[in-house]
Amino acid sequence: MNVSELEWTGTEQQIAKAAFDRAYQREIERLIESVQGQVRAISVVEDVWRLHDFLSTKRHEIDGKYDYEHAALIFTFAGFVKDGLLHLDELAGLESSKLTKIAALARF
Amino acid sequence: MNVSELEWTGTEQQIAKAAFDRAYQREIERLIESVQGQVRAISVVEDVWRLHDFLSTKRHEIDGKYDYEHAALIFTFAGFVKDGLLHLDELAGLESSKLTKIAALARF
Repeated sequence: MNVSELEWTGTEQQIAKAAFDRAYQREIERLIESVQGQVRAISVVEDVWRLHDFLSTKRHEIDGKYDYEHAALIFTFAGFVKDGLLHLDELAGLESSKLTKIAALARF
Repeated sequence: MNVSELEWTGTEQQIAKAAFDRAYQREIERLIESVQGQVRAISVVEDVWRLHDFLSTKRHEIDGKYDYEHAALIFTFAGFVKDGLLHLDELAGLESSKLTKIAALARF
């Protein structure tokens, strides 16, 4: 079965939504910390434009990454696990075949 | 005579270049201070994207404003004076007709 056709029970949807929101929150916390760190180090105008480029990239990346689409959830979670934004344990309660797929994809 | 056809002596060019660089330096100092102030106030992701929008606007504005083109210098300096980036005194040494034009345009 194609991962985009997986069925998600009501409970699984709740778990998935909570995990998704948690990963997003962590991503944003990391982003804010990174911006604060970069701003402390600003001394010349090139540092300002470098921060601008960084924010342009991050905004584009985050806009794409946090699209909560059921068909893509397995890939989305695999990405979160790979990036250290989510631990597999935080997806406990999902069907084990989904967890196996997520864990496998996170290794790529 | 059209302002874009004004002649600039060697001394005037030196004065103009130094004043131009001074205004640019002040603009950048203001920009860095503003970024630092905004970053101190960041708490949610919308604040980060607001900073990004601000930097996009500023970068575009500064790229256009600090184009050192002889034909446009009178207008450029008038803009600096108007924005408080340069004082008329800092242009002392330029031909008085140029100073009059700059002062007049800065009032618009």
